[in-house]
Amino acid sequence: MHTTVVEIVTGRRPAVVDLGREVDAFVSEAARGLDGLLHVFVPHATAGVAVIETGAGSDADLLAALDRLLPADQRWVHRHGSPGHGRDHVLPGLVAPFVVVPVLGGRVALGTWQSLCLVDTNVDNPVRQVRLSFLPG
Amino acid sequence: MHTTVVEIVTGRRPAVVDLGREVDAFVSEAARGLDGLLHVFVPHATAGVAVIETGAGSDADLLAALDRLLPADQRWVHRHGSPGHGRDHVLPGLVAPFVVVPVLGGRVALGTWQSLCLVDTNVDNPVRQVRLSFLPG
Amino acid sequence: MHTTVVEIVTGRRPAVVDLGREVDAFVSEAARGLDGLLHVFVPHATAGVAVIETGAGSDADLLAALDRLLPADQRWVHRHGSPGHGRDHVLPGLVAPFVVVPVLGGRVALGTWQSLCLVDTNVDNPVRQVRLSFLPG
Repeated sequence: MHTTVVEIVTGRRPAVVDLGREVDAFVSEAARGLDGLLHVFVPHATAGVAVIETGAGSDADLLAALDRLLPADQRWVHRHGSPGHGRDHVLPGLVAPFVVVPVLGGRVALGTWQSLCLVDTNVDNPVRQVRLSFLPG
Repeated sequence: MHTTVVEIVTGRRPAVVDLGREVDAFVSEAARGLDGLLHVFVPHATAGVAVIETGAGSDADLLAALDRLLPADQRWVHRHGSPGHGRDHVLPGLVAPFVVVPVLGGRVALGTWQSLCLVDTNVDNPVRQVRLSFLPG
Repeated sequence: MHTTVVEIVTGRRPAVVDLGREVDAFVSEAARGLDGLLHVFVPHATAGVAVIETGAGSDADLLAALDRLLPADQRWVHRHGSPGHGRDHVLPGLVAPFVVVPVLGGRVALGTWQSLCLVDTNVDNPVRQVRLSFLPG
């Protein structure tokens, strides 16, 4: 298994960050033309990984849906940091902190409109780690 | 890694389609009695894969829940195709487009009531691809 | 692939049960200092696996969010067992019954605040099976 950690700046607002560039660079080096599975993992308790289209508004739509499904208000038992932060700790229950996708011939075999994205609603941690691992098949 | 793509007709209504027949056929050929992991992946930006019971109403219940959690109305920034289509692009954020399940002795080791299902709320794409991959352990 | 099944008592109330002890024991024996992927799978149609922080209220927060997103009332087509049980069958559509996380040097490489948890809203099945599998890389 080849594995590495990349640092992603998500900033101080809820963000969906496209990991395409980091993933492509890693897979072209780690897979070297082989087939296998790519594992994307965020080792944080207040972020998730999603496969969605970016650049056409769906990233904003996902954040708006999460604002409604997990409101950033005072309802949460887990209460510290910015107001409503407890909802960030529930996020990984719905948007899991990992994704597994196929690698074929050394390239991630996503659909045309799919992008691997870090989903980070936590405004208190502007820099995140993402672990990329390639398991040859 | 053994891998193949199957075509699934999901039709022009939101649908939960049981992939059991396609999965069993693939795994019996690809795994040949071995242990490993089965990876099910839909390379589309408006569909997901879920493991639920089928045939007792939970497929309809899942679609009804998604209608409520991600309403097919005009709220979405991503706006093209059928009315409310933007919600189909948020779906993979909640119902991820992949599943990984164990294979034991050449058979998918699901629980009695579990089925691998394609979840497709997108009414504009009646035919979908699903990639099945077996990684021997 | 090394694989085993552990039994987890979740009791007769909705529960988020930390699997850390079982996972650590399995991985230390199965991985023996190697890298790879850990697959956690619950072979039941009314439970999921999540990676969240435990011990600070987020387990209760996740259950409260699920109560709101999937209410235990009479709306569900799938109707048997305790009142509202149909929602337990939709749960795995949102909280999938599997998780894959990296193993490095024979240890699960979770973040500081992450725990692998069984999420079980089904009050009719107090004992659950969880399959742990290690795929060396």
